[in-house]
Amino acid sequence: MKKRLRDIAEAINARVIGDDQIEIGGVASIANAKPGDLVFVEEEKHLQPALQSGAAGVIAGAFAENAKTPKLLLISENPRLAFALAAAMLKTSEAPAAGIHTSAVVLPSAVIDKSAIVDAWALVGENAQVGARSWIGAGCVIGSGVVIGEDCRIYPRVTIYPETSIGDRVIVHAGAVLGSDGFGYVTDRASDKHEKFPQIGRLEIEDEVEIGANTTIDRGALETTRIGRGTKIDNLVHIGHNCQIGENVIIAAQAGFSGSITIENNVVIGGQVGMGEHAHVGEGVMLGGQAGVLPKKILRGKGVAFWGTPAKPLREYLKQLAALGKLGK
Amino acid sequence: MKKRLRDIAEAINARVIGDDQIEIGGVASIANAKPGDLVFVEEEKHLQPALQSGAAGVIAGAFAENAKTPKLLLISENPRLAFALAAAMLKTSEAPAAGIHTSAVVLPSAVIDKSAIVDAWALVGENAQVGARSWIGAGCVIGSGVVIGEDCRIYPRVTIYPETSIGDRVIVHAGAVLGSDGFGYVTDRASDKHEKFPQIGRLEIEDEVEIGANTTIDRGALETTRIGRGTKIDNLVHIGHNCQIGENVIIAAQAGFSGSITIENNVVIGGQVGMGEHAHVGEGVMLGGQAGVLPKKILRGKGVAFWGTPAKPLREYLKQLAALGKLGK
Amino acid sequence: MKKRLRDIAEAINARVIGDDQIEIGGVASIANAKPGDLVFVEEEKHLQPALQSGAAGVIAGAFAENAKTPKLLLISENPRLAFALAAAMLKTSEAPAAGIHTSAVVLPSAVIDKSAIVDAWALVGENAQVGARSWIGAGCVIGSGVVIGEDCRIYPRVTIYPETSIGDRVIVHAGAVLGSDGFGYVTDRASDKHEKFPQIGRLEIEDEVEIGANTTIDRGALETTRIGRGTKIDNLVHIGHNCQIGENVIIAAQAGFSGSITIENNVVIGGQVGMGEHAHVGEGVMLGGQAGVLPKKILRGKGVAFWGTPAKPLREYLKQLAALGKLGK
Repeated sequence: MKKRLRDIAEAINARVIGDDQIEIGGVASIANAKPGDLVFVEEEKHLQPALQSGAAGVIAGAFAENAKTPKLLLISENPRLAFALAAAMLKTSEAPAAGIHTSAVVLPSAVIDKSAIVDAWALVGENAQVGARSWIGAGCVIGSGVVIGEDCRIYPRVTIYPETSIGDRVIVHAGAVLGSDGFGYVTDRASDKHEKFPQIGRLEIEDEVEIGANTTIDRGALETTRIGRGTKIDNLVHIGHNCQIGENVIIAAQAGFSGSITIENNVVIGGQVGMGEHAHVGEGVMLGGQAGVLPKKILRGKGVAFWGTPAKPLREYLKQLAALGKLGK
Repeated sequence: MKKRLRDIAEAINARVIGDDQIEIGGVASIANAKPGDLVFVEEEKHLQPALQSGAAGVIAGAFAENAKTPKLLLISENPRLAFALAAAMLKTSEAPAAGIHTSAVVLPSAVIDKSAIVDAWALVGENAQVGARSWIGAGCVIGSGVVIGEDCRIYPRVTIYPETSIGDRVIVHAGAVLGSDGFGYVTDRASDKHEKFPQIGRLEIEDEVEIGANTTIDRGALETTRIGRGTKIDNLVHIGHNCQIGENVIIAAQAGFSGSITIENNVVIGGQVGMGEHAHVGEGVMLGGQAGVLPKKILRGKGVAFWGTPAKPLREYLKQLAALGKLGK
Repeated sequence: MKKRLRDIAEAINARVIGDDQIEIGGVASIANAKPGDLVFVEEEKHLQPALQSGAAGVIAGAFAENAKTPKLLLISENPRLAFALAAAMLKTSEAPAAGIHTSAVVLPSAVIDKSAIVDAWALVGENAQVGARSWIGAGCVIGSGVVIGEDCRIYPRVTIYPETSIGDRVIVHAGAVLGSDGFGYVTDRASDKHEKFPQIGRLEIEDEVEIGANTTIDRGALETTRIGRGTKIDNLVHIGHNCQIGENVIIAAQAGFSGSITIENNVVIGGQVGMGEHAHVGEGVMLGGQAGVLPKKILRGKGVAFWGTPAKPLREYLKQLAALGKLGK
């Protein structure tokens, strides 16, 4: 979707040097930029290639103010953030036109907003709701009683179990499974048989969450699993029943959470991190890739990085690594 | 499905204190319980909140026998197990009414029991069989020659490759892939090309197995991959070709098994555990989260916990951790 | 598909002892072999069981030349490779007859070769192309602008995001997601909000790649993610945006790559290996199961095995393990 440079600059809080009436069509890397594109530069040493690229304009820091160039400049305090915001403004929708595809099955009690899209072979169950401008991709299965807010993008082949609720502006990538049964059994010691503990709670996903491809999030056993506003979850992540994930948490690919874990706001969790039941990670903690957190363990410290299994503060972890390295010689 | 308290008590082997003619509608947590619900308490210190909850009745240990309360009491040796069994009795089916959805494709040579359900856009291949009361969810692809027993729940969007056999009362969650090709190649040293080793064996899943969302289990290369009766498998688990998994095994999320591994009965495997080819885990062994078992390794010891990579008995692992901790100081 | 033994022997570069006019129907394990099957033996000690099996013929090394047996013998320098090649020749197709299933949706601008198969409820988007003899399984979603080459097998329920390109003879197993958005955000420090960095690059998959069930591969952020010719990827693997994977690489199950990683040709990556951003693995390196490679780390050494987290050469890793073992006593 084309936008006038002036409107973009205003929205991303950048100062234009050059003609701000020009129309901009998209964003690109420096190598791929075509006329009409914006590119960005964070460091002065990369400015020259950007000025020589095919782009119409360059988002850059104050270091670019006096550059001699016919290119349009957008001076920003945070060029990377400004570029991301510009990209979001310029993004064209992949979704088809509003409406329900003739091959979709929408049960009569479901409520679909007129501006929503329900694509081919999507199933929307009893009493489910789909909000304004939300897109349900091809082959999705939306269980009974599921509530999906406004401006959501549910990519193809997502399964959402009954009673799950999803906020506004949520993105769910292909193949994700939301609200499936948690993994809970009671073993009958007489027979060694594992009897299924009831998995009848719900899953609530708040606004602006993004969920990666083939990720799985279980509903609560008796209570509710909750994913806080603005949290971003990568591909192939597993989140078990009853987990309480805070706001603006980052969870990288293949991380796994067993049941009843609490993650406070603004935590960053690396790829393949594993966490035992009832672990608790305090606000702003960072967990390095492959770290392991034992059941019931509590980690605290804003901005403190933890590494290894069992996870320990990075400084301690590095000392141990160094000591181990010497030993091995 | 409502049941009389007397019938529930009999089935779960509990003794009723109070009016056993009351009808019970479901189970719940203490916080969420409504009239008609059962809750449970394992320890005396949690009894008071249960008695003050909205529930009709409380499943508890002998410690509750003399409690002064208008609530119905169900005294059980194992309240948690009794609660799980009661929940199973009271569970209402999520499946639609019996029959084949008009949009499903069932090949003429397939045999579907009259009481089975084949949901929208499910494909049932040549000579496949679906047993009594089994539910094939929307968008499932059931390959040719697949046999599915009675009372199975196959959630939406499960893919089952040809010739797989599945027992009775098996639950498979959304997105799981059963019977896919194993990962086997023969490298031609002249060209560095990896030629596909034939993956033409089968997958057999015995009765009462539960399989989590987006889990993948490969068929045998030339032989059969087998999952024993009563084994429970969490989400995003990978089980490679030719694995022989025993009965009542517990496998937590994201655990991964390469080829030809043997797991004996009643083993418990933590999340993200990884195992190399031809490893062998003896009866009743427990593997802690993220443990790694080397190829061909044999672990034995009923009730013995192994941790770390390479996996070692917990006692040894803890000693090493302690020693490492001192070193790092 | 039955073949004359002479034609097989020629193709797999083996010398026949016996009647080479016999027709062969398939391959099998020694335990399962039926008349008409071929089996193989790599070591002389396993020759007798093979000769006593139900097979028509045995592929074996020179050690079998003088065996006294009525069985047909195929003498090969590499019996395992010869067996794999024979199996490929004899494989019968699982795909239905050529053509587009009546329930599939193919947009008018898409170009489907006449010999291709588009199965039930597959969606082929605008301007997409499907090459000769390629099979799009039931329930696949092929995005707009996707190009799929010749002789590909796309198993059921695969999702391919727009603009992805796939070469010839590529196999993609059920549930895989190709070309999904990468995991990239820019955090606005004023609000702690994570703004989506644009994920508008592409994914290119070269010829003869095989991709396992429920694996996810992200498209580039601004550039292209690339999977080189002949690379084989197991189940539940995650490959992040901008990764450059070389040719004939082996990636075992549940391995995970964050963004912008370079893997050179002929690398072997064990199960559950994790790699940080911008890591670089040189030609022919081998990474043991669960190894962890730190961001920006460079590993080099043809045929050198690396283990542990952070990954180190196997020799060093073993020394450390031994030292740690002593400490723990």
